[in-house]
Amino acid sequence: MDEAPALHPDVVPLAFLLGEWAGEGRGEYPTIESFPYREQVRFWHVGKPFLAYTQGTKHAETGLPLHAEMGYWRCFPGDDGVPAHIEVVLSHPSGISEVLEGSLRADLAGLATIDLTTSSVTRTHTAKQVTALARQLTVEGDVLRYSVAMAAVGQPLTHHLGAELRRV
Amino acid sequence: MDEAPALHPDVVPLAFLLGEWAGEGRGEYPTIESFPYREQVRFWHVGKPFLAYTQGTKHAETGLPLHAEMGYWRCFPGDDGVPAHIEVVLSHPSGISEVLEGSLRADLAGLATIDLTTSSVTRTHTAKQVTALARQLTVEGDVLRYSVAMAAVGQPLTHHLGAELRRV
Repeated sequence: MDEAPALHPDVVPLAFLLGEWAGEGRGEYPTIESFPYREQVRFWHVGKPFLAYTQGTKHAETGLPLHAEMGYWRCFPGDDGVPAHIEVVLSHPSGISEVLEGSLRADLAGLATIDLTTSSVTRTHTAKQVTALARQLTVEGDVLRYSVAMAAVGQPLTHHLGAELRRV
Repeated sequence: MDEAPALHPDVVPLAFLLGEWAGEGRGEYPTIESFPYREQVRFWHVGKPFLAYTQGTKHAETGLPLHAEMGYWRCFPGDDGVPAHIEVVLSHPSGISEVLEGSLRADLAGLATIDLTTSSVTRTHTAKQVTALARQLTVEGDVLRYSVAMAAVGQPLTHHLGAELRRV
């Protein structure tokens, strides 16, 4: 799975994500106690028009595994002045699936920003009632920052996760 | 991510899936030419109540990558005589997400059978119109066989994939 074919042209605009990232974040939500976490993220490709993605977090103090997710990122490059369209499909081990759509913008100073919102959140019947998520991810050089807002268990879309990772 | 903690009790009934599998299969569908493929499958765990799963196929003749998918498997053990309930969330790089539910049965001769059907299929707006899938997976010793039926692009639920893999 891990050969090194040429990057598919469709995902060249996402090349800045490729590789491994690690760092720290904080989770919070109105219904839980906030918690610090350590995170590892990996983006890779197989020469086809998507990036594969996997992520895992551990509690920063206890080291116990917390969340994980994995899925695929697709890109449909925009025309002059039109941001690239991004599609992401993510699976969560808690029985939740996110389908996200949004855009990629890059500014002249080298900051790339991806904004995504869920077009659907589906779940197994035992999973928590998550109804919507919004994700923003930025990369500037070797620093990846993201934030996740979540609507769940009766709460409106509310900040849930924020982290800063560095390329490793 | 690949430490070796104890298997979570909830997924002990799925322990027979853990490890790496490889073999060959065939894809067919009323709207396409049938094709042979080679496949690699991996199930692993991190000590939490799920198995992580990733899969990739290559064309058996050209060696080019075909499909891939990844996600998580959960198990809710049944009582006496009641089969365990299985939940699976899968992401496809084509922009499709499957949420599947079903059951695990094991017979006295050591054949384990998991039957799953999609409770939802969601997709990004560029993805193919897949509307339902049914998956059957059996394991007998070191042989894993599966079949996938798919309803897509106006076709009813129709056999699509079948493969036989061996533990590697």
